[in-house]
Amino acid sequence: MIVVMKVGSGDKEIAGVVKRIESAGLKAHVSQGVERTIIGVVGQIFPELEGMLEMLSGVDEVIRVSKPYKLSSREFHPLDTTVKVGGITIGGKEIVVMAGPCAVESEQQLLETARAVKAAGATILRGGAFKPSTSPYHFRGLGEPGLELLAQVKKEVGLPVITEVMSSSEVELVARYADILQIGARNMQNFNLLEEVGKTGKPVMLKRGLSATVQEWLLAAEYVLAQGNEQLMLCERGIRTFETYTRNTMDISVIPIIEKVSHLPIIADPSHGTGKWYLVIPMALAAVAAGADGIMVEVHPNPDLALKDGAQSLTFANFHQLMSQLKSVAEAVGRRLANPSIKVKS
Amino acid sequence: MIVVMKVGSGDKEIAGVVKRIESAGLKAHVSQGVERTIIGVVGQIFPELEGMLEMLSGVDEVIRVSKPYKLSSREFHPLDTTVKVGGITIGGKEIVVMAGPCAVESEQQLLETARAVKAAGATILRGGAFKPSTSPYHFRGLGEPGLELLAQVKKEVGLPVITEVMSSSEVELVARYADILQIGARNMQNFNLLEEVGKTGKPVMLKRGLSATVQEWLLAAEYVLAQGNEQLMLCERGIRTFETYTRNTMDISVIPIIEKVSHLPIIADPSHGTGKWYLVIPMALAAVAAGADGIMVEVHPNPDLALKDGAQSLTFANFHQLMSQLKSVAEAVGRRLANPSIKVKS
Amino acid sequence: MIVVMKVGSGDKEIAGVVKRIESAGLKAHVSQGVERTIIGVVGQIFPELEGMLEMLSGVDEVIRVSKPYKLSSREFHPLDTTVKVGGITIGGKEIVVMAGPCAVESEQQLLETARAVKAAGATILRGGAFKPSTSPYHFRGLGEPGLELLAQVKKEVGLPVITEVMSSSEVELVARYADILQIGARNMQNFNLLEEVGKTGKPVMLKRGLSATVQEWLLAAEYVLAQGNEQLMLCERGIRTFETYTRNTMDISVIPIIEKVSHLPIIADPSHGTGKWYLVIPMALAAVAAGADGIMVEVHPNPDLALKDGAQSLTFANFHQLMSQLKSVAEAVGRRLANPSIKVKS
Amino acid sequence: MIVVMKVGSGDKEIAGVVKRIESAGLKAHVSQGVERTIIGVVGQIFPELEGMLEMLSGVDEVIRVSKPYKLSSREFHPLDTTVKVGGITIGGKEIVVMAGPCAVESEQQLLETARAVKAAGATILRGGAFKPSTSPYHFRGLGEPGLELLAQVKKEVGLPVITEVMSSSEVELVARYADILQIGARNMQNFNLLEEVGKTGKPVMLKRGLSATVQEWLLAAEYVLAQGNEQLMLCERGIRTFETYTRNTMDISVIPIIEKVSHLPIIADPSHGTGKWYLVIPMALAAVAAGADGIMVEVHPNPDLALKDGAQSLTFANFHQLMSQLKSVAEAVGRRLANPSIKVKS
Repeated sequence: MIVVMKVGSGDKEIAGVVKRIESAGLKAHVSQGVERTIIGVVGQIFPELEGMLEMLSGVDEVIRVSKPYKLSSREFHPLDTTVKVGGITIGGKEIVVMAGPCAVESEQQLLETARAVKAAGATILRGGAFKPSTSPYHFRGLGEPGLELLAQVKKEVGLPVITEVMSSSEVELVARYADILQIGARNMQNFNLLEEVGKTGKPVMLKRGLSATVQEWLLAAEYVLAQGNEQLMLCERGIRTFETYTRNTMDISVIPIIEKVSHLPIIADPSHGTGKWYLVIPMALAAVAAGADGIMVEVHPNPDLALKDGAQSLTFANFHQLMSQLKSVAEAVGRRLANPSIKVKS
Repeated sequence: MIVVMKVGSGDKEIAGVVKRIESAGLKAHVSQGVERTIIGVVGQIFPELEGMLEMLSGVDEVIRVSKPYKLSSREFHPLDTTVKVGGITIGGKEIVVMAGPCAVESEQQLLETARAVKAAGATILRGGAFKPSTSPYHFRGLGEPGLELLAQVKKEVGLPVITEVMSSSEVELVARYADILQIGARNMQNFNLLEEVGKTGKPVMLKRGLSATVQEWLLAAEYVLAQGNEQLMLCERGIRTFETYTRNTMDISVIPIIEKVSHLPIIADPSHGTGKWYLVIPMALAAVAAGADGIMVEVHPNPDLALKDGAQSLTFANFHQLMSQLKSVAEAVGRRLANPSIKVKS
Repeated sequence: MIVVMKVGSGDKEIAGVVKRIESAGLKAHVSQGVERTIIGVVGQIFPELEGMLEMLSGVDEVIRVSKPYKLSSREFHPLDTTVKVGGITIGGKEIVVMAGPCAVESEQQLLETARAVKAAGATILRGGAFKPSTSPYHFRGLGEPGLELLAQVKKEVGLPVITEVMSSSEVELVARYADILQIGARNMQNFNLLEEVGKTGKPVMLKRGLSATVQEWLLAAEYVLAQGNEQLMLCERGIRTFETYTRNTMDISVIPIIEKVSHLPIIADPSHGTGKWYLVIPMALAAVAAGADGIMVEVHPNPDLALKDGAQSLTFANFHQLMSQLKSVAEAVGRRLANPSIKVKS
Repeated sequence: MIVVMKVGSGDKEIAGVVKRIESAGLKAHVSQGVERTIIGVVGQIFPELEGMLEMLSGVDEVIRVSKPYKLSSREFHPLDTTVKVGGITIGGKEIVVMAGPCAVESEQQLLETARAVKAAGATILRGGAFKPSTSPYHFRGLGEPGLELLAQVKKEVGLPVITEVMSSSEVELVARYADILQIGARNMQNFNLLEEVGKTGKPVMLKRGLSATVQEWLLAAEYVLAQGNEQLMLCERGIRTFETYTRNTMDISVIPIIEKVSHLPIIADPSHGTGKWYLVIPMALAAVAAGADGIMVEVHPNPDLALKDGAQSLTFANFHQLMSQLKSVAEAVGRRLANPSIKVKS
């Protein structure tokens, strides 16, 4: 931590800062510059110190130099983390494809979709039973019956299942059915929920909040990891910007950034990331070209009849085309699609 | 709802859209323009229709013309809502001041602050027992003992209490102690939590999410109102923008906007809205000049020792100065500060 | 400037950084922390150094501690700057009101508006002769004939004139007619133009760019000041955010920020800042409550017939109401409206 | 254009809107909905009408349904535009690579870089002679001598040259030396400059402004096209968002969006788009996977000695690696790198 003094701050003010640092059991290194004095703080810094030093007389700015996240940081954990689900390894050389409807609507819809995406090469089945909805008047998912359908179709088709959990009181329920617990963007800073999914020990996928910085996202990840659960992956799904053409702006650059600063696998969701089905294929290809460990896409038998997010869902034919192009791009960057034919324990 | 067809879309495509609209029991009004055809949809529109029509061949865009929020809308509820707390009316001619420490730290800190802010004219005591924290390693509040301190100090000093509730499982607990339940920015779209606080029937203050549009905020309010709880007020606390000088950018314009589009009272929180104590006074004055029904500010006996958000807390002297200037500005816009000397039932 | 080394960087990497710093004629202060090594750079730092050090092996981050702006900074120029125009002082105790039509359309429109705003207490007449327009198909101003009308009406009504200059090739022309040269938001980083208006020695008002940080804005101001022209004021006119209800989000907090970090006067433009006439009055009041030295508002005899930006223009009656409320708020914060009855040299 | 009336607006208000529409020589289609009345405007709408109608009594909102851009729109110009430079076609099946130093610093630096990038397969040489700089104290380019070096190196190495023009007064000068005139992000709405480069008839590359929406960008393109110059391409170079890890957030999704809504070629600049050299390769690959017609990257013999933007420049070795991976990704999406060995007329 570095304390930057104001231009013209005097000996008394510098002494005040030094005294406060030392009274916290830390060391102060004073360095007199041409314009200003800088005071380095050395020792085991506690988080509240920053705000405290900022308030002292003569202080212009306090700059933190260590990263506030540790467990999710590559500096402290250089080797890649991999997440294991139903015989598949996420975060290695293979690229996983999670596909399925936005919301589970009926047995037929789910079963038909699961069969189609598996036939086209998907590795994991996605489908929402509890759906966050901006408006209380919109479809909010089937709830537990939706979970039961997921479990049933998983068995019939042989694909592990990822589904969202929205509330800490539902973690136990959802964890009984799901192979991967998904935390949605709106819940990225629902800290109780993060701790609850951490405690399950089950694989977790943490979506980035709509306006979360990389640092905030990794601190949210830290809540899960701090519970001893390292089966964690991140998922970019678009951020909020001034652009209105798309629902969100998908931040592809965060993929190589996460790879650099963290050891956690990174997935990309171009369906939510763009909100428009005709952008899903190019953005899925871009994500894999940029280094993503997998993609998550919405597929629906009849997008124009979908109860949720039809405009961003692929048809079976579109999904088939995506998989064929994705295979080529994956190979162009030295990777390959995960083999979906591995057995899933029911 | 209006369907805008692509330039050059033909009779067949128009007929397809009309057919879909009619099959949903609605009427279609086709209007041929110079460049494009527009199709108006008349009838009881259901929310999923928008996405469905967007997918049809020849459609360029679907535009919603009715507002998705109803209960919070001034169009459907022209008269101002007022919230009643401990003999005070929020949303009328009087301006309320909610003041206190960011986090409850100790009996002494809370009691001393409560006495100081009451003496200076505050109407409501704020203080966090459960604190959201970006990092799992920071101070996260005293929990229930913090609530007990709030209740005790409320009795001793005679100020109603507002405090945050972060999880649906804690609503009952917090509601036992608090006069107003606060929903924080990070939980603005925690829909389960919104419904739970709605069910209590207690006054609720809903903070705007960091990247929430006016429409999303009012839809979140709709979740509370839909439970039959009309004792609801909104609170602007800064939005996320590209500017890094401040922690957030406080959106003063949303105050007159809310007044125009909604009947709910609107409070401003310049402490979180700016993150810097020296901006709190000018921004509090600006908020009241722009029409805010109240302000919420953080006050601490020793901001440089605060366990949370010291850099944005006012000292007692600063708060005293704020109240004096606020009085003048309130009167300049034809309002007055609420009288804090009303008895609070313990 | 501070160089933060990566966790685990070794002696060789530290020596490399020290060597580079010393080879640039500067001193390096190495400080070994618990986690990382930090190297302070002391001496006359040149701007390219930051990028150069960032590239060296073992470097995690380079942090600049001195502000890149000097001439516009309050640290180096503690006393307030005032701008003098036609007997009026901007940046002192008095608050100036610049009012008039967005675009000059005709002699009658301009004359009628000038008389009305002067009668209501405006101090300066605004009106665009050269208008930036997002679309090439929209009205782009009368050009030189517009300037002539401004000069003529200035003489008849007795108000100094502010008008925009959009291109360095037109600076001389516009400077012949205008009392204050306005640089629009889209040109905030048109560096040639900034230098040209700097050279005229005339008062300049520099609007903030739509996505300009405080630092970038002050660096743009630096281009004008570096030409020896200190008759400079800044103008907040809304920034671009995710919110779509308003055209821009007016950043009221930047008013006290500029007052803190700079000595230049700060004006607020709620017409462009919001894009909606019914938000202009509350936002003008808020700006003055927050410490603005003046406001700029659009007024039109018939906003519903305006060729440009009618939706954000006040009628004469609205403007009259604004002035009356503004007077009260100005006095509430210890200031007063500038007296407009001072003679203007024609 | 559609006028949405307020809930509860009456016959008199509707009649007022209809009258105004008809008095402008247009037709009004009134459509009575369940909640509100909607009035469609049919005929040759002029741009000022929107603001005028918004002001009328009873009007809630005016919605434009035709796109304001025409010449750049794919709806009105379905076939792809291609730009021809020195025997190369941009916007067809081949992908062009523009590479070179951020700023021209010396003959040796430019010549060495040009030879290295040509050897690695670049098709066009980039290099700035006039450099926009946020601060007046930073390096701002060599000016005309820089242009002369570009011309000389072009001859010696045989690569066409792209360079930025910053001011309308320098268009003629720069056009004498450059094969492609680049308009930088800060000048995207410098309308005089856009018209001047339009008039030259030379190929133009228009970068997206830091906070420009797709629509504003295409309207800026319209300024060039309206001069009869169709040799125009667009370039994404990162937008401003809340994220601070990168200098900008590169919007890869705008690549397929431009392809959908416009016929103009689209180039991606991952050097400015990210500001960090280690993100350039993954983002260049992502851009091509998403459909970009070319990329522009900064290459420097010694990035750690660069006078400008060293931190985002590739070394020769990095560039070589990029070209090899780019070739694979281009082929994976059915395209190929442009052949650089074509002769350039000097």
